[in-house]
Amino acid sequence: MSTYLLYGGIEGGGTKFICAVGRRPDEIVDEIRFPTTTPQETLERVCSFFTPYVREARIKSIGLGSFGPVDVDPASPTYGYITTTPKPNWANTNILGILQKELGVPIAMDMDVAASAMGEFIWGANQSQDPSMYLTVGTGIGGSYILNGKPLRGLVSLEMGHVRIPHDEKLDSFKGSCPYHGDCFEGLASGPAIQARFGKRGESLADGDPFWELEAGYIAYAVANYILTLPPKKIVLGGGVMRKDFLYGRIRSRLYGILNKYLNHPLLTSQLDKYIVPPALGDRSGVLGAIALAIELDK
Amino acid sequence: MSTYLLYGGIEGGGTKFICAVGRRPDEIVDEIRFPTTTPQETLERVCSFFTPYVREARIKSIGLGSFGPVDVDPASPTYGYITTTPKPNWANTNILGILQKELGVPIAMDMDVAASAMGEFIWGANQSQDPSMYLTVGTGIGGSYILNGKPLRGLVSLEMGHVRIPHDEKLDSFKGSCPYHGDCFEGLASGPAIQARFGKRGESLADGDPFWELEAGYIAYAVANYILTLPPKKIVLGGGVMRKDFLYGRIRSRLYGILNKYLNHPLLTSQLDKYIVPPALGDRSGVLGAIALAIELDK
Repeated sequence: MSTYLLYGGIEGGGTKFICAVGRRPDEIVDEIRFPTTTPQETLERVCSFFTPYVREARIKSIGLGSFGPVDVDPASPTYGYITTTPKPNWANTNILGILQKELGVPIAMDMDVAASAMGEFIWGANQSQDPSMYLTVGTGIGGSYILNGKPLRGLVSLEMGHVRIPHDEKLDSFKGSCPYHGDCFEGLASGPAIQARFGKRGESLADGDPFWELEAGYIAYAVANYILTLPPKKIVLGGGVMRKDFLYGRIRSRLYGILNKYLNHPLLTSQLDKYIVPPALGDRSGVLGAIALAIELDK
Repeated sequence: MSTYLLYGGIEGGGTKFICAVGRRPDEIVDEIRFPTTTPQETLERVCSFFTPYVREARIKSIGLGSFGPVDVDPASPTYGYITTTPKPNWANTNILGILQKELGVPIAMDMDVAASAMGEFIWGANQSQDPSMYLTVGTGIGGSYILNGKPLRGLVSLEMGHVRIPHDEKLDSFKGSCPYHGDCFEGLASGPAIQARFGKRGESLADGDPFWELEAGYIAYAVANYILTLPPKKIVLGGGVMRKDFLYGRIRSRLYGILNKYLNHPLLTSQLDKYIVPPALGDRSGVLGAIALAIELDK
């Protein structure tokens, strides 16, 4: 065990950054939020926040969950970079390198959704569920598995939002909003896809709008595919679109139909209400998960 | 290290069983094949084959890759059972229990496709590629990941053949042959799906038949989804349908289009010929992989 008491967490999102110092959800001693502007300005604010703690040697390590795409392969020459993001000024930003150089403490970095998955696995709704999964449906769609206590990694980062699912153009003539894949899952069901379809944000769409049944179906198809490919013990479903909380029931109902009792486990045949759940940490999964990544690094 | 020199491997397929004794692909000292009949007759032949080696204490452990669905969860009361198979007489057969009782040596059991994945990972085309994946497209469609040197397991067994993929009914009006899901991947692209479509086996369909372009597209969509969900370092594609070896090139070509350089790794943007490959062990991945499971159990 370390003699240092505290850890840092950074949720680096495309629209805002959240930084926190603490040890666990009920022991957060300091926290700050600010909008994401240029890399220079944004990362200076991150460093200003942590520097006093670093100077006093009160934090041992920091975790960073970053928007992406990010290179999380330690063997890669661009490890720790935000790579091909369309976000102005941020493409090819060595976010990990800059922070590590300025702050001088070890920093664990992963995708934002991987940090959220760790937060829910260590302290939230997926606690002790290994493997477990976190899926966010919001501005983007992304997912992460936790396996053997850590975010699962492969040849490249997981890009679960871009899977192809059935798209019945008779029911939904929208061509999809993904610049790479058109009508992939994210292209059909993310916040921007809803905005492109209706010219207004999903929040302002009535709960009774028939579109929500389509949305529930798309999410259910994708979740079914994840379950068939690597069946987690539990799935947390978060993100802005899921604030329409009637979606949980509809997704479960569609999923029963899609799986059709082929996978013979009570959680999947009759207890999806215990299997597909909202984040227990609410919108704090990301920053708390970043602290979990820092703790994991310190082990 | 064990003082025993040999291991047993059983590839328990729905149409035939293969049993072997040896240590590695070029050191197989005995091997037998016979058709799968009733559980009693089939398992008696398995035991007759291994009994002399067991009596002389020449084999330390046996690996079994079984057709399924099988229960591979050691915590389950039906661990080691072939469960809900439609194959006559085999439903609810405690295959692991029967063999372990008769032979009295430790037996490692997994799905047949997981054994094949181990074979290709230890001695074949996926050697040292971790995580790697094996997908079989034949009588059924199934896949397995090897992660941290072992077949990856989740809440239930992986059933990658049953994912939903885009199915353009204008191009392909076939409704699908899966009794559970209709037009899931297996329902559209397995050997029986081809047979149901044309009233004849895929082998007898001309190489120039336009159907093969559809088939390549279905396989490419599914493989793209697996890569986006858990990106392996290499994929072996085997099974009876893949004996039409022109399919490899067409699948790679479709996959370039589907991924559209979104995943920024040279293997995925320009070197799919090194990434999606036939089994190096040919039709011996299964029985050799079963021996690999036995060796793994003995470690």
